[in-house]
Amino acid sequence: MDIKDVKKVTIAGCGTEGSQISSMVAYKGFETTVWLRSEGSIDRAKPRLESVRKQILGELDAWKADRGEYCRGLSDEKDLTDEQIDQLRAQAEERLSHICLTTSAEEAFSDADVVIECINEDPAQKRAFYEKISGIMPEKTLLLTDSSTFLPSTFADATGRPDRYMTLHFANQIWRNNLTELMRHDRTSDESFELAEQFSHAIGMVPLKLNKEQPGYILNTLLIPWFKAAMCLVASGVTDPATVDLCWELDTGARPDQTPFRKIDKVGLPLALKIISMEPGADDPSTPAGMMVALLKSYVDAGKTGIAVDEGFYKYDENGNVIK
Amino acid sequence: MDIKDVKKVTIAGCGTEGSQISSMVAYKGFETTVWLRSEGSIDRAKPRLESVRKQILGELDAWKADRGEYCRGLSDEKDLTDEQIDQLRAQAEERLSHICLTTSAEEAFSDADVVIECINEDPAQKRAFYEKISGIMPEKTLLLTDSSTFLPSTFADATGRPDRYMTLHFANQIWRNNLTELMRHDRTSDESFELAEQFSHAIGMVPLKLNKEQPGYILNTLLIPWFKAAMCLVASGVTDPATVDLCWELDTGARPDQTPFRKIDKVGLPLALKIISMEPGADDPSTPAGMMVALLKSYVDAGKTGIAVDEGFYKYDENGNVIK
Repeated sequence: MDIKDVKKVTIAGCGTEGSQISSMVAYKGFETTVWLRSEGSIDRAKPRLESVRKQILGELDAWKADRGEYCRGLSDEKDLTDEQIDQLRAQAEERLSHICLTTSAEEAFSDADVVIECINEDPAQKRAFYEKISGIMPEKTLLLTDSSTFLPSTFADATGRPDRYMTLHFANQIWRNNLTELMRHDRTSDESFELAEQFSHAIGMVPLKLNKEQPGYILNTLLIPWFKAAMCLVASGVTDPATVDLCWELDTGARPDQTPFRKIDKVGLPLALKIISMEPGADDPSTPAGMMVALLKSYVDAGKTGIAVDEGFYKYDENGNVIK
Repeated sequence: MDIKDVKKVTIAGCGTEGSQISSMVAYKGFETTVWLRSEGSIDRAKPRLESVRKQILGELDAWKADRGEYCRGLSDEKDLTDEQIDQLRAQAEERLSHICLTTSAEEAFSDADVVIECINEDPAQKRAFYEKISGIMPEKTLLLTDSSTFLPSTFADATGRPDRYMTLHFANQIWRNNLTELMRHDRTSDESFELAEQFSHAIGMVPLKLNKEQPGYILNTLLIPWFKAAMCLVASGVTDPATVDLCWELDTGARPDQTPFRKIDKVGLPLALKIISMEPGADDPSTPAGMMVALLKSYVDAGKTGIAVDEGFYKYDENGNVIK
């Protein structure tokens, strides 16, 4: 199958990622269907899609008002006129209001060219889902998973189409952080890998290719040891978060919000705590992992879970700026 | 001692770091002496100091021509007029031509307020140096080491003044990368730590304070696991250097030259190889460390040692831009 043959794309699940992915797929002009397990799930999905729709339209408005606000995922062309941005906006309003929501697996999958699985990170649920749809999808369908914790080989057999199954992993706020990590398993075909790459381009993403399975993909493989090194420096009493962040900023010229502790505040301290708690020695307060757990727990227990609640390692004002 | 009482600063050694530090100390108006072991060392130091002098004057000229070229270490004030930059340049020419070079320990150390040790990273040489000067320095002298591999507690006793001894660690191109890492050992006094902080500000640096000893300080503690994660992804065949770097750039908005492999090219692959070779398992090609060693050796053996020779993980043109 060539990218030109991809007409209908179905997204299974409509959480944070599912709602963003569905919206970007629709924004780029594909016939977009969201499959959900129940009418209750549909009721919860609607406000999420509406919120993403507002964010995307808001990004276009901001871009029109200030060209520095250009958002890579929303236009390949950087230099557009006001009229061209208006056209994009009108098209976006139209397309984002035509996302089809359904609980019917038949309607969602029987003629889908690409399916993107964004359901809960629960292996039993994922397996049951794959087994259920394997008999409904046509032969041609490329099946992608956005799972951030499971490797595609885990479910390849359950899908009934290991050669047309692989990971397409998205970031958050994908219109801005428009990267996809493409990860194949041993039996993914070259054709599927290439189609996933073309599809990424077609939905405004920059594809990053992994030739084999790697837990954490590229981005988390880089971020997690960097986060750990930063947290270790603070947990062991060597220095404080602001000094670590300033050091990174001064050496690399990074934007202040792209330094280790500012980024952990965005990820959220509970997720950092969950990851560090799985490290060897996390139960022993004398090990580096144990010290990091104690540090993170002290913040999480005090309700300082990150920028989402205006306080993590830093305090933030309502615009997300650090309060000194 | 207060920073106002600091008049004479002596730098021991005049390699890459010593020449930059001496020049910045002189640039900021301190009476600057460089102590060297022999007349031969003086002959080698002169062209290095001349080269740094040209770089600093060149930075001021570039800044005058284009205000975007502002160099943090050379002026606290960012918005200067052409006339003010001309004044700074004239002052720099004057001050940088008055650095005193001597082989006399008496002349160098007997009335120094601050001494910065930048001699070879050889523990026996350092110990002998400290023992030699301990009887020459006056009581008041603050003794600082720029060592990047040794902790100050290693030599504290040899200095005869453990309370007035600590690390002040500089980066490279310190007029631009103007950070100092201040690391105290158990017996460094608060007064010494504070004076080192004031002195850092006085020579145009941003002091980053470490309350206890930490191999690698802050910067290398962050950089090394990040480099290792990046190299592991490539050494194990998951992906290639350009994809890793693009991932970091897209996610963090980093400048392209501040991504993992571009930075390893600046550090130099032989140093990376030396560091990884000390890791457990480095001799075994089936371990992550062994795979990284094989990767780095393949480049180093082919003469691709980094940006200094125009080729490392990337190829560079004469302006240091990547050739695609």
